[in-house]
Amino acid sequence: MRRLPQNPLIRPQDVAPSREDFEVAGAFNPGVGRLGDEVVLLVRVAERPKARDEAHLVAPVARPGGGIEVLRFRRDDPDVEILDERWFRYRGGTYLTSISHLRAARSTDGARFAVDAAPAILPSTPTEAFGVEDPRITRIGGDHWITYKAVSSHGIATALAHTRDYASYDRHGVILCPENLDVVIFPEKIAGGYAALTRPAPMNIGPPAIWLARSPDLLHWGRHEPLVAPRPGMWDSGRVGASCVPFRTPAGWLLIYHGADETHRYCVGVALVDGADPSKVLARSREPIMTPGASYEEHGFFGGVVFPTGAVVRDDGGVTVYYGAADQHVCAAETTLDELLGCLADA
Amino acid sequence: MRRLPQNPLIRPQDVAPSREDFEVAGAFNPGVGRLGDEVVLLVRVAERPKARDEAHLVAPVARPGGGIEVLRFRRDDPDVEILDERWFRYRGGTYLTSISHLRAARSTDGARFAVDAAPAILPSTPTEAFGVEDPRITRIGGDHWITYKAVSSHGIATALAHTRDYASYDRHGVILCPENLDVVIFPEKIAGGYAALTRPAPMNIGPPAIWLARSPDLLHWGRHEPLVAPRPGMWDSGRVGASCVPFRTPAGWLLIYHGADETHRYCVGVALVDGADPSKVLARSREPIMTPGASYEEHGFFGGVVFPTGAVVRDDGGVTVYYGAADQHVCAAETTLDELLGCLADA
Repeated sequence: MRRLPQNPLIRPQDVAPSREDFEVAGAFNPGVGRLGDEVVLLVRVAERPKARDEAHLVAPVARPGGGIEVLRFRRDDPDVEILDERWFRYRGGTYLTSISHLRAARSTDGARFAVDAAPAILPSTPTEAFGVEDPRITRIGGDHWITYKAVSSHGIATALAHTRDYASYDRHGVILCPENLDVVIFPEKIAGGYAALTRPAPMNIGPPAIWLARSPDLLHWGRHEPLVAPRPGMWDSGRVGASCVPFRTPAGWLLIYHGADETHRYCVGVALVDGADPSKVLARSREPIMTPGASYEEHGFFGGVVFPTGAVVRDDGGVTVYYGAADQHVCAAETTLDELLGCLADA
Repeated sequence: MRRLPQNPLIRPQDVAPSREDFEVAGAFNPGVGRLGDEVVLLVRVAERPKARDEAHLVAPVARPGGGIEVLRFRRDDPDVEILDERWFRYRGGTYLTSISHLRAARSTDGARFAVDAAPAILPSTPTEAFGVEDPRITRIGGDHWITYKAVSSHGIATALAHTRDYASYDRHGVILCPENLDVVIFPEKIAGGYAALTRPAPMNIGPPAIWLARSPDLLHWGRHEPLVAPRPGMWDSGRVGASCVPFRTPAGWLLIYHGADETHRYCVGVALVDGADPSKVLARSREPIMTPGASYEEHGFFGGVVFPTGAVVRDDGGVTVYYGAADQHVCAAETTLDELLGCLADA
């Protein structure tokens, strides 16, 4: 994985806030689409109020009718428990310190992006009150299907939206109930139906792992099966989740996924599943193909994170992987299909 | 709720173990069906090896090909963390101290049951390795649809099976991925599709609450919406889940649900949702309609639990609610539709 010299491609200061009293804390974890000659990213833009002080934590919460209410909590309140920069607990509830929407950014060379002035998808339902995050985009025919995290006090769910032009968006509600995130739809039907990688995160038993699900219509999902689990003692011992839309190779579907250990260091791996039956894992990389190393990956809103969320595969086998760095920047790295396949060991 | 004088209706000693070297630790949480003049229960039968000693914990695990392997762990192993009688942790994994299957029990008077000698549904897939539990049965036409917990190291998921005669069963795999349990299907189509109450239990944000889901075919589920959440400071402050199949009343769908506070004391409540649009909660009981009180509810495999899992509603408005008591016995209590509706306060 060769990082682009232009990294970070999009920084918070490159994005206009959605309202004057807010600032952009992060522009990261972009869904990746292609429209004509353009690469279109749907970037997760995390915002927070400019008006902050040392004594208080803020939690911006979207109202169902529109608008954002800013909740404030005293840091020294004994009922406040700070988890990390991203979230805290208060009296049994969990709150986020920023609220995200999705914003389009467009490029003809895949490296220099012009960021839209206005949001593409704003939080707008009760299950999106804490924001919409981490989109993945799968093109099927002329339809671009966008899965994204819908976050609220009810949990982290996955919702579906759809566009044909990155100008208007249809929304289809919650397709996977909490806790489910990192949901990536395969780009073609398999055995007569749609398939997706999902990432349930259970409360009591079981690790945060990649599962496979099937659907007749993209809206309703079933036939869930565990697929790729964390590996004790390895770099992906704590959790794994799908990153990019799988791409078909002669050897099978190639999955670029992310994993983290117990210290929340997020790295990147690859797995190969059967082309006709994606429930069969054929191979998996032993070592990560990418680890946080650049300063913009080690330091940021949440440091030590490389988090791919989409890729462009060219006809010559070149692959540009777009990723979020340190929950703050959009970055990209180059590789090839041959190099990715070369990383695979037997599962 | 008037407890039947015959309680407990089914005790562990009334059930033949599925193999000679096992004993039945609990017979509880029964799904309730009606077949002709009979009430048929599918009872959760929890078994464990007879061969146990004070120094060891046991974890019976079903092999995918059939058979059960018994894992043993030293209680004094520093890597063992005992959660309660039901489960323990070892090196990042969670294990159950018993393994459950489903067993039919049949009655013509609804109180005296003959328990089948052989299991109806045994754990048989990798996602059922720790057992199959807590069935709910919804009859639609001549089809009896059985949702049940499929428990394994991958998590607690919900699987679907189907019977017409309680003699043979078709299995349809996992319909809701972890963590989801207490899934109850509505007994008729609503607005052209099927509906179900589900109970996601998220890892990071959100309480274990009742959600509503929709399906075109009972196999694939979507359009998830939060419906009934725990209420801080009340008896159902910790968690809530659907108990019985909802029944239609002139006022709307009546839901008998269970809730627990932070001490894991499980009680019973009722809620009313709109007859045409079950996403609208119309009313909810302030106080529990039933709390653990009888000795067979206070003491058992896991004490302090009344856990309804099905009901029979008669034409005269009489309702027999079947429930698990203390994770050990099958019990029942009598009430009426009028009494249940009378417990409702405004939501």
